[in-house]
Amino acid sequence: MAQRAEQPGSRLSRRITNLHASPIREILSVIDRPGLVSFAGGLPANETFPTLSAQAVPRSWLQYGPTEGEPALRERIAAELSSIGVSCTPEQVLVLSGSQQGIDLVAKLFVDPGTLVAVESPTYLAALQVFRFFGARFLTLDACRPLTSASPSRRGRSGRPALIYTNPTFQNPTGHCYSGAERDALAQACDESGVALFEDDPYRDLAYDDCDRSPICGRLHRTSWIYQGSFSKSLAPGLRLGFLAASMDLLGHLTRLKQAADLHSNRLSQWLVLEQLSASERGDRLSRLVSTYRRKRDFFARALGRHLGSIATWETPRGGLFFWLKLRRQIDTRSLLPEAIRRGVAFMPGEPFFPESPKSCSALRLNFSHADEAQTERGLATLAELLR
Amino acid sequence: MAQRAEQPGSRLSRRITNLHASPIREILSVIDRPGLVSFAGGLPANETFPTLSAQAVPRSWLQYGPTEGEPALRERIAAELSSIGVSCTPEQVLVLSGSQQGIDLVAKLFVDPGTLVAVESPTYLAALQVFRFFGARFLTLDACRPLTSASPSRRGRSGRPALIYTNPTFQNPTGHCYSGAERDALAQACDESGVALFEDDPYRDLAYDDCDRSPICGRLHRTSWIYQGSFSKSLAPGLRLGFLAASMDLLGHLTRLKQAADLHSNRLSQWLVLEQLSASERGDRLSRLVSTYRRKRDFFARALGRHLGSIATWETPRGGLFFWLKLRRQIDTRSLLPEAIRRGVAFMPGEPFFPESPKSCSALRLNFSHADEAQTERGLATLAELLR
Repeated sequence: MAQRAEQPGSRLSRRITNLHASPIREILSVIDRPGLVSFAGGLPANETFPTLSAQAVPRSWLQYGPTEGEPALRERIAAELSSIGVSCTPEQVLVLSGSQQGIDLVAKLFVDPGTLVAVESPTYLAALQVFRFFGARFLTLDACRPLTSASPSRRGRSGRPALIYTNPTFQNPTGHCYSGAERDALAQACDESGVALFEDDPYRDLAYDDCDRSPICGRLHRTSWIYQGSFSKSLAPGLRLGFLAASMDLLGHLTRLKQAADLHSNRLSQWLVLEQLSASERGDRLSRLVSTYRRKRDFFARALGRHLGSIATWETPRGGLFFWLKLRRQIDTRSLLPEAIRRGVAFMPGEPFFPESPKSCSALRLNFSHADEAQTERGLATLAELLR
Repeated sequence: MAQRAEQPGSRLSRRITNLHASPIREILSVIDRPGLVSFAGGLPANETFPTLSAQAVPRSWLQYGPTEGEPALRERIAAELSSIGVSCTPEQVLVLSGSQQGIDLVAKLFVDPGTLVAVESPTYLAALQVFRFFGARFLTLDACRPLTSASPSRRGRSGRPALIYTNPTFQNPTGHCYSGAERDALAQACDESGVALFEDDPYRDLAYDDCDRSPICGRLHRTSWIYQGSFSKSLAPGLRLGFLAASMDLLGHLTRLKQAADLHSNRLSQWLVLEQLSASERGDRLSRLVSTYRRKRDFFARALGRHLGSIATWETPRGGLFFWLKLRRQIDTRSLLPEAIRRGVAFMPGEPFFPESPKSCSALRLNFSHADEAQTERGLATLAELLR
């Protein structure tokens, strides 16, 4: 539909040739197909969404609002960040229209054609998409061993990156969680090299086992930083609300970029999120959410063992929304997707998560939060059949 | 606050040097000061906002949604556009997080450093800000005579623009409305030269006197186009919802740009706007809105005559939200703003609306929709005192 007739006579920007149709987009367009089991998106379970009421929203909140976000919400976010070690004032908080927006703003702030950005490999594909769009070249951090392979201070051959993008807690797509020592080491490397750190932390509330989740930004002493979080996983994605906090040297720039992008974020959502954050039952709600997802993860892990134990390997993630499967035989998993969808199951091929765009990676990402148990059984059985 | 300590050690993008603190931002940060009369923003009157209830929002709408927007809303928008002469299918409609986002997406699509963009002078300052940020150079269209001075087909000396940005109906800031002949002529010039047209039309519902408001995009036969509208003026800005329709050659690009910017727009707002568009009392609500603003405009015009008749000239706008005052003596109106705010009245200096950044333009923009009658009297009296 959107794809026909795309040979404009118009003269488009050079950067637009770097923006390709994204697999996420194709997937979001099929998730509503009846009967399809989707392990593809990072979709929270609908039954975890809070009941929202906009009845009490003051009429004045329907007016234009401040670019930075509602003062009460920024205050609340700053307090929560400070309590997890990212000490910051409300003035350092910028409310976002979802954390995808934070990636757009940070890319605009740092990335010129040719700019080096250090990223984990694999990493969140829509971050790669945005950085690539603005012309970034990538340096690879190993998500499991961030410093031995490519710490900014030790890597001379390709130059110093302008920015490190990391998703250290229950990473998308691998589910990996940095250890405390790894967090310390990355912080120290950033401070020593003066490279800015962009920590993307949308999954931190979804922790099913003990692990160190304390933000890396809270361990920095000198370098510039951006820490961002999301309300899509802990509340609801349809509200499209996230936030960032940043070092003061970046904050003014980011605020102006936000203003140029959409003036300010949806105030109805800001009001509803503030209500939810202040609700006395919030702790209980989060515990229930985590229990629900832990149960889903455990069920998924058992079903994986039954259906795919002989075909693939994986680690059970301690949090987040994904299993990362490595297939025993070499294959471009993108080539499997159309047939999988024809058979009624969607997954996320692994290749788009790699900055170096490999021909094949023999890995795929499976989301365990959205499908119910019967769907999970059916979907994984279908997938195993296809992979055999 | 956001301004201190802005000498980052980090290496920022080259384009960030083109993004300056915006006057809009400074103004939005003072509008809530008690007692201040603000003629500065383009703020609708709070009393015109509809009563919204999110009670009935289906839980599934809190999930991630399609990048393009909700199908039912796109259908509705396409039908309305077709009824005003912009014949398009629902597939050509993209829901936006406010029409400011449309400017960001279109700039990303067309503007490289050095790209020529033809704009009216003066024009919407936040569009200039975004185009400039991506490195645009400007060609000037005369808002009142768009073709004699700088039609793209007749202007050879500075090269052909990649894009024409126009706000032909109740323009921000001048209030000017193109005649039918001017609309025809601009459409023909675009078709002949193959330059893409970007028509920004947020004020079309706010028409107080008869005039031709039929979109220029509906008169095109060949060239690429983007038409955008907003729900901020006819419903409520806090919902942050707008839309664009575009020729099919651009639509796929714009959709991917939207996805990279924020995945999709707020679904709660989409649900509420769809409810409002489908409501049987919608026509009555719009009539009341227009009557309210017409009354405010007329009151403002009379008050202007009383207080500023000897100091300035203006045309009474036939729609929209602004009076554009030309002062009889030469002055940089930016220099007046701090003292005006100290005396309790805010206005919008004229200079930032000009692409060529003049030293002084002796013009200022006054919004008449937000202040009540007593505030208008007091504010204009204060302003007259200051200008004398």
